[in-house]
Amino acid sequence: MREVFHQNLKIVSDQLVELTHLAGSAMSRATTALIDADLALAESVITADQRIDEVRAELDALAIDLLARQQPVAGDLRMVVTSMRMSSDLERMGDLARHIAKVARLRYPNSAVPAELRATIVEMGHIAEELVAKAGSVIASRDIVAAQELEHDDDAMDAKHRELFTRLADKWTHGTTAAVDITLLGRYYERFGDHAVSVASRVVYLVTGEWDLAVDHEDHEDDLDLS
Amino acid sequence: MREVFHQNLKIVSDQLVELTHLAGSAMSRATTALIDADLALAESVITADQRIDEVRAELDALAIDLLARQQPVAGDLRMVVTSMRMSSDLERMGDLARHIAKVARLRYPNSAVPAELRATIVEMGHIAEELVAKAGSVIASRDIVAAQELEHDDDAMDAKHRELFTRLADKWTHGTTAAVDITLLGRYYERFGDHAVSVASRVVYLVTGEWDLAVDHEDHEDDLDLS
Repeated sequence: MREVFHQNLKIVSDQLVELTHLAGSAMSRATTALIDADLALAESVITADQRIDEVRAELDALAIDLLARQQPVAGDLRMVVTSMRMSSDLERMGDLARHIAKVARLRYPNSAVPAELRATIVEMGHIAEELVAKAGSVIASRDIVAAQELEHDDDAMDAKHRELFTRLADKWTHGTTAAVDITLLGRYYERFGDHAVSVASRVVYLVTGEWDLAVDHEDHEDDLDLS
Repeated sequence: MREVFHQNLKIVSDQLVELTHLAGSAMSRATTALIDADLALAESVITADQRIDEVRAELDALAIDLLARQQPVAGDLRMVVTSMRMSSDLERMGDLARHIAKVARLRYPNSAVPAELRATIVEMGHIAEELVAKAGSVIASRDIVAAQELEHDDDAMDAKHRELFTRLADKWTHGTTAAVDITLLGRYYERFGDHAVSVASRVVYLVTGEWDLAVDHEDHEDDLDLS
Protein backbone atom coordinates (compact mmCIF):
# COMPACT_ATOMS: atom_id res chain seq x y z
CA MET A 1 0.00 0.00 0.00
CA ARG A 2 2.67 2.49 0.99
CA GLU A 3 4.81 1.38 -1.93
CA VAL A 4 1.97 2.07 -4.34
CA PHE A 5 1.48 5.40 -2.63
CA HIS A 6 5.10 6.38 -3.12
CA GLN A 7 5.08 5.25 -6.75
CA ASN A 8 2.11 7.56 -7.25
CA LEU A 9 3.80 10.42 -5.43
CA LYS A 10 6.73 9.98 -7.79
CA ILE A 11 4.34 10.36 -10.74
CA VAL A 12 2.97 13.55 -9.18
CA SER A 13 6.50 14.87 -8.70
CA ASP A 14 7.39 14.02 -12.32
CA GLN A 15 4.27 15.84 -13.50
CA LEU A 16 5.27 18.91 -11.51
CA VAL A 17 8.70 18.86 -13.15
CA GLU A 18 7.03 18.47 -16.54
CA LEU A 19 4.87 21.51 -15.77
CA THR A 20 8.01 23.55 -15.06
CA HIS A 21 9.37 22.49 -18.47
CA LEU A 22 6.13 23.38 -20.23
CA ALA A 23 5.87 26.75 -18.46
CA GLY A 24 9.52 27.54 -19.19
CA SER A 25 9.15 26.64 -22.84
CA ALA A 26 5.97 28.73 -23.11
CA MET A 27 7.74 31.70 -21.56
CA SER A 28 10.77 31.37 -23.82
CA ARG A 29 8.65 31.17 -26.97
CA ALA A 30 6.28 33.93 -25.83
CA THR A 31 9.20 36.30 -25.31
CA THR A 32 10.63 35.49 -28.74
CA ALA A 33 7.20 35.93 -30.34
CA LEU A 34 6.86 39.29 -28.62
CA ILE A 35 10.27 40.62 -29.63
CA ASP A 36 10.24 39.23 -33.20
CA ALA A 37 6.53 39.92 -33.78
CA ASP A 38 6.22 36.25 -34.79
CA LEU A 39 2.52 35.50 -35.15
CA ALA A 40 2.84 31.75 -35.72
CA LEU A 41 4.99 31.37 -32.62
CA ALA A 42 2.55 33.44 -30.57
CA GLU A 43 -0.32 31.23 -31.74
CA SER A 44 1.61 28.11 -30.83
CA VAL A 45 2.12 29.36 -27.25
CA ILE A 46 -1.58 30.18 -26.92
CA THR A 47 -2.57 26.72 -28.18
CA ALA A 48 0.03 24.87 -26.09
CA ASP A 49 -1.33 26.32 -22.85
CA GLN A 50 -4.09 23.73 -23.08
CA ARG A 51 -1.49 21.01 -22.56
CA ILE A 52 -0.39 22.70 -19.32
CA ASP A 53 -3.99 22.79 -18.13
CA GLU A 54 -4.36 19.09 -18.98
CA VAL A 55 -1.23 17.99 -17.11
CA ARG A 56 -2.33 20.10 -14.18
CA ALA A 57 -5.81 18.49 -14.20
CA GLU A 58 -4.27 14.98 -14.38
CA LEU A 59 -1.95 15.80 -11.50
CA ASP A 60 -4.74 17.15 -9.32
CA ALA A 61 -6.98 14.16 -10.13
CA LEU A 62 -4.20 11.80 -9.09
CA ALA A 63 -3.52 13.80 -5.92
CA ILE A 64 -7.20 13.74 -4.95
CA ASP A 65 -7.36 10.03 -5.70
CA LEU A 66 -4.40 9.50 -3.38
CA LEU A 67 -6.15 11.46 -0.62
CA ALA A 68 -9.32 9.41 -1.03
CA ARG A 69 -7.77 5.95 -1.38
CA GLN A 70 -4.62 6.10 0.68
CA GLN A 71 -5.62 8.64 3.32
CA PRO A 72 -2.08 9.84 3.92
CA VAL A 73 -1.07 11.61 7.13
CA ALA A 74 1.88 13.75 8.27
CA GLY A 75 4.59 14.18 5.63
CA ASP A 76 2.75 12.19 2.99
CA LEU A 77 -0.37 14.32 3.38
CA ARG A 78 1.75 17.46 3.25
CA MET A 79 3.34 16.27 0.02
CA VAL A 80 -0.03 15.67 -1.66
CA VAL A 81 -1.62 18.96 -0.59
CA THR A 82 1.52 20.94 -1.41
CA SER A 83 1.70 19.34 -4.86
CA MET A 84 -1.75 20.67 -5.65
CA ARG A 85 -0.62 24.14 -4.59
CA MET A 86 2.46 23.92 -6.78
CA SER A 87 0.36 22.76 -9.73
CA SER A 88 -1.84 25.81 -9.26
CA ASP A 89 1.24 28.10 -9.35
CA LEU A 90 2.58 26.38 -12.46
CA GLU A 91 -0.74 26.46 -14.29
CA ARG A 92 -0.92 30.18 -13.57
CA MET A 93 2.62 30.63 -14.94
CA GLY A 94 1.43 29.04 -18.18
CA ASP A 95 -1.45 31.55 -18.28
CA LEU A 96 0.97 34.43 -17.86
CA ALA A 97 3.13 33.20 -20.76
CA ARG A 98 -0.07 32.92 -22.80
CA HIS A 99 -0.96 36.54 -21.90
CA ILE A 100 2.42 37.66 -23.24
CA ALA A 101 1.82 35.72 -26.47
CA LYS A 102 -1.58 37.39 -26.77
CA VAL A 103 -0.01 40.85 -26.58
CA ALA A 104 2.41 39.75 -29.34
CA ARG A 105 -0.52 38.57 -31.46
CA LEU A 106 -2.50 41.75 -30.84
CA ARG A 107 0.28 44.03 -32.08
CA TYR A 108 1.33 41.90 -35.06
CA PRO A 109 2.86 42.82 -37.52
CA ASN A 110 4.46 45.32 -35.15
CA SER A 111 6.28 44.43 -31.96
CA ALA A 112 4.53 45.62 -28.80
CA VAL A 113 7.92 46.51 -27.34
CA PRO A 114 9.67 49.75 -28.37
CA ALA A 115 13.23 49.12 -29.59
CA GLU A 116 14.89 50.77 -26.60
CA LEU A 117 13.09 48.40 -24.18
CA ARG A 118 13.70 45.15 -26.03
CA ALA A 119 16.91 44.32 -24.15
CA THR A 120 15.08 44.75 -20.83
CA ILE A 121 12.18 42.53 -21.88
CA VAL A 122 14.54 39.88 -23.31
CA GLU A 123 16.35 39.86 -20.00
CA MET A 124 13.10 39.54 -18.04
CA GLY A 125 12.29 36.55 -20.25
CA HIS A 126 15.66 34.98 -19.50
CA ILE A 127 15.29 35.53 -15.76
CA ALA A 128 11.81 34.00 -15.90
CA GLU A 129 13.15 30.91 -17.71
CA GLU A 130 15.99 30.54 -15.21
CA LEU A 131 13.63 30.86 -12.25
CA VAL A 132 11.24 28.20 -13.49
CA ALA A 133 14.09 25.86 -14.50
CA LYS A 134 15.56 26.20 -11.03
CA ALA A 135 12.14 25.61 -9.47
CA GLY A 136 11.96 22.39 -11.50
CA SER A 137 15.38 21.27 -10.25
CA VAL A 138 14.34 22.05 -6.70
CA ILE A 139 11.20 19.91 -7.03
CA ALA A 140 13.29 17.00 -8.31
CA SER A 141 16.24 17.37 -5.93
CA ARG A 142 14.58 18.79 -2.79
CA ASP A 143 17.66 21.00 -2.54
CA ILE A 144 16.50 23.59 -0.05
CA VAL A 145 19.61 25.72 -0.41
CA ALA A 146 18.79 26.20 -4.11
CA ALA A 147 15.14 26.73 -3.15
CA GLN A 148 16.04 29.51 -0.76
CA GLU A 149 18.25 31.12 -3.41
CA LEU A 150 15.26 31.60 -5.69
CA GLU A 151 13.83 34.47 -3.68
CA HIS A 152 17.14 36.27 -4.09
CA ASP A 153 17.31 35.33 -7.80
CA ASP A 154 13.90 36.94 -8.25
CA ASP A 155 15.36 40.28 -7.12
CA ALA A 156 16.87 40.55 -10.62
CA MET A 157 13.33 40.40 -12.03
CA ASP A 158 12.16 43.07 -9.60
CA ALA A 159 15.06 45.30 -10.66
CA LYS A 160 14.19 44.94 -14.35
CA HIS A 161 10.53 45.58 -13.57
CA ARG A 162 11.48 48.76 -11.75
CA GLU A 163 13.57 49.73 -14.78
CA LEU A 164 10.47 49.49 -16.98
CA PHE A 165 8.55 51.78 -14.64
CA THR A 166 11.40 54.26 -14.58
CA ARG A 167 11.28 54.41 -18.38
CA LEU A 168 7.52 54.82 -18.32
CA ALA A 169 7.74 57.68 -15.82
CA ASP A 170 10.53 59.55 -17.57
CA LYS A 171 9.98 61.24 -20.96
CA TRP A 172 7.95 58.40 -22.50
CA THR A 173 7.62 59.07 -26.24
CA HIS A 174 5.96 55.86 -27.46
CA GLY A 175 2.34 56.77 -26.84
CA THR A 176 -0.30 55.53 -24.42
CA THR A 177 -1.01 52.19 -26.09
CA ALA A 178 2.64 51.15 -25.81
CA ALA A 179 2.63 52.33 -22.18
CA VAL A 180 -0.40 50.12 -21.44
CA ASP A 181 1.27 47.14 -23.15
CA ILE A 182 4.54 47.59 -21.27
CA THR A 183 2.71 48.00 -17.95
CA LEU A 184 0.85 44.72 -18.45
CA LEU A 185 3.86 42.87 -19.86
CA GLY A 186 5.96 43.99 -16.90
CA ARG A 187 3.34 42.66 -14.53
CA TYR A 188 3.11 39.30 -16.36
CA TYR A 189 6.87 38.69 -16.14
CA GLU A 190 6.95 39.83 -12.54
CA ARG A 191 4.08 37.57 -11.49
CA PHE A 192 5.65 34.62 -13.34
CA GLY A 193 8.75 35.11 -11.19
CA ASP A 194 6.68 35.41 -8.01
CA HIS A 195 4.97 32.08 -8.70
CA ALA A 196 8.33 30.39 -9.34
CA VAL A 197 9.48 31.67 -5.93
CA SER A 198 6.24 30.32 -4.40
CA VAL A 199 6.93 26.86 -5.84
CA ALA A 200 10.44 26.82 -4.39
CA SER A 201 9.23 28.10 -1.00
CA ARG A 202 6.71 25.28 -0.85
CA VAL A 203 9.55 22.77 -1.32
CA VAL A 204 11.34 24.36 1.64
CA TYR A 205 8.22 23.85 3.76
CA LEU A 206 7.93 20.26 2.56
CA VAL A 207 11.48 19.46 3.55
CA THR A 208 11.41 21.32 6.86
CA GLY A 209 8.10 19.69 7.77
CA GLU A 210 6.10 22.87 8.16
CA TRP A 211 2.91 23.85 6.38
CA ASP A 212 3.17 26.56 3.77
CA LEU A 213 0.17 28.50 4.97
CA ALA A 214 1.78 31.86 4.33
CA VAL A 215 3.65 31.63 1.02
CA ASP A 216 0.72 31.78 -1.37
CA HIS A 217 0.68 34.38 -4.06
CA GLU A 218 3.47 36.57 -2.83
CA ASP A 219 3.42 39.67 -4.89
CA HIS A 220 6.47 41.81 -5.16
CA GLU A 221 4.67 44.43 -7.21
CA ASP A 222 3.61 45.84 -3.87
CA ASP A 223 7.04 47.25 -3.34
CA LEU A 224 7.07 49.18 -6.59
CA ASP A 225 6.89 52.89 -6.42
CA LEU A 226 5.48 53.83 -9.77
CA SER A 227 6.05 57.52 -9.35
CA MET B 1 -16.83 11.25 14.52
CA ARG B 2 -18.87 12.32 11.52
CA GLU B 3 -20.77 14.79 13.68
CA VAL B 4 -17.52 16.39 14.79
CA PHE B 5 -16.43 16.42 11.17
CA HIS B 6 -19.54 18.25 10.06
CA GLN B 7 -19.28 20.75 12.92
CA ASN B 8 -15.76 21.49 11.71
CA LEU B 9 -16.90 21.78 8.10
CA LYS B 10 -19.45 24.33 9.29
CA ILE B 11 -16.62 26.34 10.88
CA VAL B 12 -14.71 26.20 7.60
CA SER B 13 -17.78 27.38 5.70
CA ASP B 14 -18.32 30.24 8.19
CA GLN B 15 -14.68 31.26 7.76
CA LEU B 16 -15.12 31.34 3.99
CA VAL B 17 -18.16 33.59 4.39
CA GLU B 18 -16.16 35.80 6.76
CA LEU B 19 -13.43 36.04 4.13
CA THR B 20 -15.97 37.25 1.58
CA HIS B 21 -17.04 39.95 4.06
CA LEU B 22 -13.46 41.00 4.72
CA ALA B 23 -12.57 41.07 1.01
CA GLY B 24 -15.74 43.02 0.19
CA SER B 25 -15.08 45.54 2.93
CA ALA B 26 -11.46 45.93 1.80
CA MET B 27 -12.58 46.51 -1.78
CA SER B 28 -15.22 49.07 -0.76
CA ARG B 29 -12.79 51.03 1.39
CA ALA B 30 -9.96 50.78 -1.17
CA THR B 31 -12.19 52.26 -3.87
CA THR B 32 -13.26 55.11 -1.59
CA ALA B 33 -9.63 55.76 -0.59
CA LEU B 34 -8.68 55.84 -4.26
CA ILE B 35 -11.43 58.23 -5.35
CA ASP B 36 -11.23 60.53 -2.31
CA ALA B 37 -7.43 60.36 -2.03
CA ASP B 38 -7.96 59.38 1.63
CA LEU B 39 -4.58 58.34 2.98
CA ALA B 40 -5.79 57.10 6.38
CA LEU B 41 -8.41 54.90 4.75
CA ALA B 42 -5.84 53.52 2.29
CA GLU B 43 -3.51 52.69 5.19
CA SER B 44 -6.32 50.94 7.04
CA VAL B 45 -7.00 48.68 4.02
CA ILE B 46 -3.30 47.84 3.71
CA THR B 47 -3.10 46.95 7.42
CA ALA B 48 -6.38 45.01 7.48
CA ASP B 49 -5.18 42.64 4.76
CA GLN B 50 -3.20 40.85 7.46
CA ARG B 51 -6.48 39.80 9.07
CA ILE B 52 -7.56 38.19 5.78
CA ASP B 53 -4.29 36.28 5.63
CA GLU B 54 -4.79 35.13 9.23
CA VAL B 55 -8.34 33.87 8.70
CA ARG B 56 -7.17 32.13 5.55
CA ALA B 57 -4.29 30.45 7.43
CA GLU B 58 -6.66 29.34 10.23
CA LEU B 59 -9.08 27.93 7.68
CA ASP B 60 -6.39 26.01 5.82
CA ALA B 61 -4.92 24.68 9.07
CA LEU B 62 -8.35 23.39 10.10
CA ALA B 63 -8.95 21.88 6.64
CA ILE B 64 -5.60 20.07 6.74
CA ASP B 65 -6.32 18.87 10.26
CA LEU B 66 -9.63 17.46 9.02
CA LEU B 67 -7.85 15.64 6.20
CA ALA B 68 -5.32 14.14 8.60
CA ARG B 69 -7.66 13.20 11.45
CA GLN B 70 -10.95 12.39 9.76
CA GLN B 71 -9.71 11.12 6.40
CA PRO B 72 -12.85 12.14 4.54
CA VAL B 73 -13.82 10.57 1.23
CA ALA B 74 -16.23 11.43 -1.60
CA GLY B 75 -18.32 14.55 -0.99
CA ASP B 76 -16.67 15.32 2.34
CA LEU B 77 -13.19 15.19 0.81
CA ARG B 78 -14.36 17.36 -2.05
CA MET B 79 -15.71 19.91 0.41
CA VAL B 80 -12.41 20.13 2.31
CA VAL B 81 -10.18 20.39 -0.78
CA THR B 82 -12.53 22.87 -2.46
CA SER B 83 -12.61 25.03 0.66
CA MET B 84 -8.84 25.42 0.48
CA ARG B 85 -9.17 26.50 -3.14
CA MET B 86 -11.83 29.04 -2.27
CA SER B 87 -9.71 30.40 0.58
CA SER B 88 -6.87 30.89 -1.91
CA ASP B 89 -9.17 32.88 -4.23
CA LEU B 90 -10.45 35.00 -1.34
CA GLU B 91 -7.00 35.69 0.04
CA ARG B 92 -5.95 36.83 -3.41
CA MET B 93 -8.98 39.12 -3.61
CA GLY B 94 -7.78 40.75 -0.40
CA ASP B 95 -4.36 41.28 -2.00
CA LEU B 96 -5.98 42.95 -5.00
CA ALA B 97 -7.92 45.37 -2.76
CA ARG B 98 -4.63 46.11 -0.97
CA HIS B 99 -2.96 46.84 -4.34
CA ILE B 100 -5.68 49.39 -5.08
CA ALA B 101 -5.15 50.99 -1.67
CA LYS B 102 -1.42 51.16 -2.39
CA VAL B 103 -2.02 53.06 -5.62
CA ALA B 104 -4.22 55.49 -3.61
CA ARG B 105 -1.40 55.93 -1.06
CA LEU B 106 1.22 56.39 -3.76
CA ARG B 107 -0.64 59.27 -5.42
CA TYR B 108 -1.75 61.02 -2.23
CA PRO B 109 -2.59 63.93 -1.91
CA ASN B 110 -3.82 63.56 -5.50
CA SER B 111 -6.27 60.95 -6.70
CA ALA B 112 -4.76 58.41 -9.11
CA VAL B 113 -7.98 58.53 -11.12
CA PRO B 114 -8.63 61.40 -13.56
CA ALA B 115 -12.02 63.08 -12.93
CA GLU B 116 -13.61 61.79 -16.12
CA LEU B 117 -12.88 58.15 -15.17
CA ARG B 118 -14.06 58.30 -11.56
CA ALA B 119 -17.61 57.18 -12.34
CA THR B 120 -16.25 54.13 -14.16
CA ILE B 121 -13.91 53.17 -11.32
CA VAL B 122 -16.64 53.71 -8.70
CA GLU B 123 -18.88 51.41 -10.71
CA MET B 124 -16.16 48.76 -10.98
CA GLY B 125 -15.83 48.97 -7.19
CA HIS B 126 -19.59 48.46 -6.78
CA ILE B 127 -19.64 45.52 -9.17
CA ALA B 128 -16.70 43.98 -7.27
CA GLU B 129 -18.52 44.36 -3.96
CA GLU B 130 -21.70 42.85 -5.38
CA LEU B 131 -19.81 39.90 -6.85
CA VAL B 132 -18.05 39.02 -3.61
CA ALA B 133 -21.23 39.51 -1.56
CA LYS B 134 -23.08 37.15 -3.89
CA ALA B 135 -20.19 34.66 -3.70
CA GLY B 136 -20.58 34.77 0.10
CA SER B 137 -24.32 34.09 -0.15
CA VAL B 138 -23.66 31.23 -2.52
CA ILE B 139 -21.18 29.64 -0.09
CA ALA B 140 -23.76 29.86 2.72
CA SER B 141 -26.82 28.84 0.70
CA ARG B 142 -25.33 26.45 -1.89
CA ASP B 143 -27.72 28.12 -4.33
CA ILE B 144 -26.30 26.97 -7.64
CA VAL B 145 -28.64 29.12 -9.70
CA ALA B 146 -27.18 32.21 -8.03
CA ALA B 147 -23.71 30.69 -8.42
CA GLN B 148 -24.18 30.27 -12.15
CA GLU B 149 -25.46 33.85 -12.43
CA LEU B 150 -22.14 35.19 -11.18
CA GLU B 151 -20.33 34.50 -14.42
CA HIS B 152 -22.94 36.59 -16.22
CA ASP B 153 -22.80 39.30 -13.51
CA ASP B 154 -19.07 39.54 -14.10
CA ASP B 155 -19.74 40.58 -17.71
CA ALA B 156 -20.58 44.02 -16.32
CA MET B 157 -17.05 44.20 -14.91
CA ASP B 158 -15.57 43.15 -18.26
CA ALA B 159 -17.59 45.87 -19.99
CA LYS B 160 -16.30 48.55 -17.61
CA HIS B 161 -12.77 47.24 -18.01
CA ARG B 162 -13.11 47.50 -21.78
CA GLU B 163 -14.39 51.05 -21.30
CA LEU B 164 -11.16 51.96 -19.47
CA PHE B 165 -9.07 50.59 -22.32
CA THR B 166 -11.14 52.48 -24.86
CA ARG B 167 -10.42 55.71 -22.97
CA LEU B 168 -6.73 54.86 -22.79
CA ALA B 169 -6.57 54.19 -26.53
CA ASP B 170 -8.46 57.30 -27.59
CA LYS B 171 -6.98 60.79 -27.13
CA TRP B 172 -5.58 60.16 -23.65
CA THR B 173 -4.54 63.52 -22.18
CA HIS B 174 -3.62 62.58 -18.62
CA GLY B 175 -0.03 61.54 -19.16
CA THR B 176 1.81 58.23 -18.99
CA THR B 177 1.86 57.84 -15.20
CA ALA B 178 -1.94 58.08 -15.03
CA ALA B 179 -2.16 55.60 -17.93
CA VAL B 180 0.03 53.13 -16.01
CA ASP B 181 -2.10 53.58 -12.88
CA ILE B 182 -5.37 53.08 -14.74
CA THR B 183 -4.00 50.01 -16.55
CA LEU B 184 -3.02 48.37 -13.25
CA LEU B 185 -6.18 49.44 -11.42
CA GLY B 186 -8.33 48.05 -14.23
CA ARG B 187 -6.54 44.75 -13.97
CA TYR B 188 -6.93 44.61 -10.17
CA TYR B 189 -10.72 45.13 -10.34
CA GLU B 190 -11.03 42.68 -13.21
CA ARG B 191 -9.06 39.96 -11.45
CA PHE B 192 -11.05 40.51 -8.23
CA GLY B 193 -14.20 39.77 -10.25
CA ASP B 194 -12.62 36.69 -11.86
CA HIS B 195 -11.77 35.22 -8.46
CA ALA B 196 -15.34 35.84 -7.21
CA VAL B 197 -16.58 33.91 -10.24
CA SER B 198 -14.09 31.13 -9.44
CA VAL B 199 -15.44 30.84 -5.90
CA ALA B 200 -19.01 30.54 -7.15
CA SER B 201 -18.03 28.00 -9.83
CA ARG B 202 -16.41 25.85 -7.17
CA VAL B 203 -19.71 25.79 -5.24
CA VAL B 204 -21.42 24.55 -8.41
CA TYR B 205 -18.92 21.71 -8.61
CA LEU B 206 -19.42 20.92 -4.94
CA VAL B 207 -23.17 20.65 -5.33
CA THR B 208 -23.09 18.75 -8.62
CA GLY B 209 -20.51 16.33 -7.24
CA GLU B 210 -17.81 17.02 -9.79
CA TRP B 211 -14.25 18.12 -9.19
CA ASP B 212 -13.40 21.67 -10.12
CA LEU B 213 -10.21 20.80 -11.95
CA ALA B 214 -10.77 23.37 -14.67
CA VAL B 215 -12.11 26.52 -13.03
CA ASP B 216 -8.93 27.79 -11.45
CA HIS B 217 -7.77 31.27 -12.21
CA GLU B 218 -10.04 32.07 -15.10
CA ASP B 219 -8.84 35.26 -16.57
CA HIS B 220 -11.16 37.33 -18.70
CA GLU B 221 -8.43 39.82 -19.52
CA ASP B 222 -7.56 37.42 -22.28
CA ASP B 223 -10.56 38.54 -24.24
CA LEU B 224 -9.60 42.18 -24.19
CA ASP B 225 -8.46 43.74 -27.36
CA LEU B 226 -6.38 46.66 -26.19
CA SER B 227 -6.01 48.19 -29.61
